[in-house]
Amino acid sequence: MQHSRPGSTVHTVAALAERFALGLRGDGATAIDGVGTLAGAGPSQLAFLANPRYRNQLADSRAGAVVMRDEDAEGYAGTALIARDPYSAFARMSALFEPQPQRVAGVHPSAVVDPSAVIAEDAHVGPFTSIGARSQVGAGATIGPGCVIGDDCVVGAGSDLIARVTLVTRVRLGQRVRIHPGAVLGADGFGLAMDAGRWLKVPQHGGVVIGDDCEIGANTTIDRGAIEDTVLEEDVRLDNQIQIGHNVHIGAHTAMAGCAAVAGSAKIGRYCLIGGAAGILGHLEICDRVVITAMSLVSSSIREPGEYSSGTGLMDNRSWRKNAARFKQLDELARKIKGKPNQ
Amino acid sequence: MQHSRPGSTVHTVAALAERFALGLRGDGATAIDGVGTLAGAGPSQLAFLANPRYRNQLADSRAGAVVMRDEDAEGYAGTALIARDPYSAFARMSALFEPQPQRVAGVHPSAVVDPSAVIAEDAHVGPFTSIGARSQVGAGATIGPGCVIGDDCVVGAGSDLIARVTLVTRVRLGQRVRIHPGAVLGADGFGLAMDAGRWLKVPQHGGVVIGDDCEIGANTTIDRGAIEDTVLEEDVRLDNQIQIGHNVHIGAHTAMAGCAAVAGSAKIGRYCLIGGAAGILGHLEICDRVVITAMSLVSSSIREPGEYSSGTGLMDNRSWRKNAARFKQLDELARKIKGKPNQ
Amino acid sequence: MQHSRPGSTVHTVAALAERFALGLRGDGATAIDGVGTLAGAGPSQLAFLANPRYRNQLADSRAGAVVMRDEDAEGYAGTALIARDPYSAFARMSALFEPQPQRVAGVHPSAVVDPSAVIAEDAHVGPFTSIGARSQVGAGATIGPGCVIGDDCVVGAGSDLIARVTLVTRVRLGQRVRIHPGAVLGADGFGLAMDAGRWLKVPQHGGVVIGDDCEIGANTTIDRGAIEDTVLEEDVRLDNQIQIGHNVHIGAHTAMAGCAAVAGSAKIGRYCLIGGAAGILGHLEICDRVVITAMSLVSSSIREPGEYSSGTGLMDNRSWRKNAARFKQLDELARKIKGKPNQ
Repeated sequence: MQHSRPGSTVHTVAALAERFALGLRGDGATAIDGVGTLAGAGPSQLAFLANPRYRNQLADSRAGAVVMRDEDAEGYAGTALIARDPYSAFARMSALFEPQPQRVAGVHPSAVVDPSAVIAEDAHVGPFTSIGARSQVGAGATIGPGCVIGDDCVVGAGSDLIARVTLVTRVRLGQRVRIHPGAVLGADGFGLAMDAGRWLKVPQHGGVVIGDDCEIGANTTIDRGAIEDTVLEEDVRLDNQIQIGHNVHIGAHTAMAGCAAVAGSAKIGRYCLIGGAAGILGHLEICDRVVITAMSLVSSSIREPGEYSSGTGLMDNRSWRKNAARFKQLDELARKIKGKPNQ
Repeated sequence: MQHSRPGSTVHTVAALAERFALGLRGDGATAIDGVGTLAGAGPSQLAFLANPRYRNQLADSRAGAVVMRDEDAEGYAGTALIARDPYSAFARMSALFEPQPQRVAGVHPSAVVDPSAVIAEDAHVGPFTSIGARSQVGAGATIGPGCVIGDDCVVGAGSDLIARVTLVTRVRLGQRVRIHPGAVLGADGFGLAMDAGRWLKVPQHGGVVIGDDCEIGANTTIDRGAIEDTVLEEDVRLDNQIQIGHNVHIGAHTAMAGCAAVAGSAKIGRYCLIGGAAGILGHLEICDRVVITAMSLVSSSIREPGEYSSGTGLMDNRSWRKNAARFKQLDELARKIKGKPNQ
Repeated sequence: MQHSRPGSTVHTVAALAERFALGLRGDGATAIDGVGTLAGAGPSQLAFLANPRYRNQLADSRAGAVVMRDEDAEGYAGTALIARDPYSAFARMSALFEPQPQRVAGVHPSAVVDPSAVIAEDAHVGPFTSIGARSQVGAGATIGPGCVIGDDCVVGAGSDLIARVTLVTRVRLGQRVRIHPGAVLGADGFGLAMDAGRWLKVPQHGGVVIGDDCEIGANTTIDRGAIEDTVLEEDVRLDNQIQIGHNVHIGAHTAMAGCAAVAGSAKIGRYCLIGGAAGILGHLEICDRVVITAMSLVSSSIREPGEYSSGTGLMDNRSWRKNAARFKQLDELARKIKGKPNQ
């Protein structure tokens, strides 16, 4: 699938090599105006080879240039850009060719901005956006269409709220934070007390603090804290539909895949990788550099780096039914094996 | 619960029988103006009997007419419409009585439409909607209130974006696609490379292609592809809060229940049924006609049609704790049984 | 984290004691203008001690006053408010100090309201909100920015739709219902019939009925019923990103944590506690006072109150792989132990 769009940029391979400090083999004059996969790229597109399992696609690639490691370039007849980390190098070059929506500086006439809010002159505030009392939008920030920014919020310089993002109240974003549509930050934490047979709502006085360079996926929710703040340190990356409860603290550079959920007051370390739809119970701690596999449930604190899992493997349903029935007898079976009487 | 609304339609049972080519027993002159359950329908409402377990409700039903199989109509004193598939026949007739919001052709004065966008004359574009550069809205399409349509999108003829739907960029919908509120199509895929201790964002150049007659549930998210497109073939049906990662491919007529999640580059076949909150890992393939039960995790490719499951059954918490503790000893126990030493 | 905001309220400890009928020890003249944690509160803030595990923080607390049980106040040198249930008492007092967004009565000039809709004079309707035919907004209700209210909806007196809430159609809210951003109530239930190799959409004629004092979390979805209504009785509390299928019925005072999902026509009792990301299959019944632990799957009806669980515990990935492999042999192993031949 090649998208041709007005105004696409063109760079020669030689210019790319110089700009990104890469080695060059082959025809530096080749003009590049976009990116493609190794199998699908055309003669004006840049592709990459990082995973050795795709090496067999190299010979047939029609790509104008391919970013690869030096050792993979041996005997390659086409034009190659040589990088130690081809995927990162490709990612950086690829950004040159991505079409960006035009966001002119200024506040759209339809936007409703509280007189006490402060909007940087070069920020963009799109249509149908409302901005509450005492909120601030920093230099070069972009607030797309349909966003709601409540009272006492801060959008740091260079941050980008793509569209339909809600910052309910007391949400402070660092610089270069990117938030995708439908995300809701700063809604009430789920604080309830049972009182004479009815739920009593516990007011949520805290806010949400998001560090620099964080990314928040579409329809992800991050509640504000009950008393103190919910915190994401810098460079935390959250995929779509993630739920972060009140007073959670997530360390820098941690990434979480789609549909993961973290209950209130959990503390997650730095450089953790949380798999898709994994669950983390409240009030526990996970140390740095922990990997949780998809759909696992973390029900107590983790104090050693490493990879952790729960659940069972997929089976055909008939076999699964038999084995799952036996799981219910597992303690009894184990007692038989170990020769201990039932408790 | 009977809803009485202005302008509801009235059809006689005889007219329904003719229009939908159904058999008729009883009083064809009965006027029908709505639908109900077998137990709850009143004398001007249509009900159905498909599942034999509800057959005992038939005698007491006050319904004006009941759609049923021929064999169930034996001895039924009321008015019956006879169908080979009563549920489908009911569904078709039921559509006659569903009140529809009035959507007049034209663009609401509050909408913000890029001058390069092309909107069909008979399309409806609701209030507080923005439409980006080079996007197209086809004949008879409906864009409800509060939608955001970014650049380079296509809404096919007869498609219906109910309200507050976001198409971020490069999203191309086929004909008669129905998208429920809060859905986000075309947000950035979750592409990251670790680079010198920080995450580097991988630009997402692809788009999303949605086939004819697909339906996308409320707050469901479908990311756009990294290089090539994320694709749903025709007649795919996604329930609410489903997450579809970048470059996923879903075959025609596959249906997924609420909260299911599919990681990047997975390829799902045709006529699959994916249960609620099931997870499918990335870069794997599922063949046609596979059924995944609720909350199962698919962690490797499936090459045979059939039903698959993972997980364990529900138990009282005390028993569960004992058995779950034994699960952690399972390999050790198995070695004892098989007489093999520990590794 | 102490937030200083314009217009914060100040109450003396003595005034709080009188208003909330609490005991007082120490300096009743202390002025309180906010809340804090036991460890973090400053001299003008109120803290609480409910969980004995935090008792050791009491001596060092700088809080202006601390709500606690009588027995915990023994020997405390600071100012104490004495309550039988300190957490509930704190919650009530805390509400005095929570800053509220200013919501003036009246309809924002940008709102699009159908002429047949009825809005109470003292209700607030925010910017970029649309309200459909025959809908009603009750006395003192608040509709925040960017909400979409379709046809035939009712927002009861004193209800609060924070922002960007969608009521699709036939949604009737009781009094004092609080709905957080991104929630979608009344979207089509997931009703499909397979008909000659294609999906046939089953129209969804029912509505959604939400009882008094319910709270609905951010990005939660509640589908409307197929024929009859989806119902939440009074004081049901739903956290974020919960999915409620069509025709579900949830009893009064039940609370569900984030990401839980309930399939169509399930009936959940009163005073149940459903853990985060738990799943409940369709067409089953759960009696009153059932607790489901996080990420458990309920696949058949529950007729006895108590706590229920499924799944396995978290392990390091290497051990988990071994044990999970054995799970697939569990029936075979059990047969060996019990001396029965394979089926």
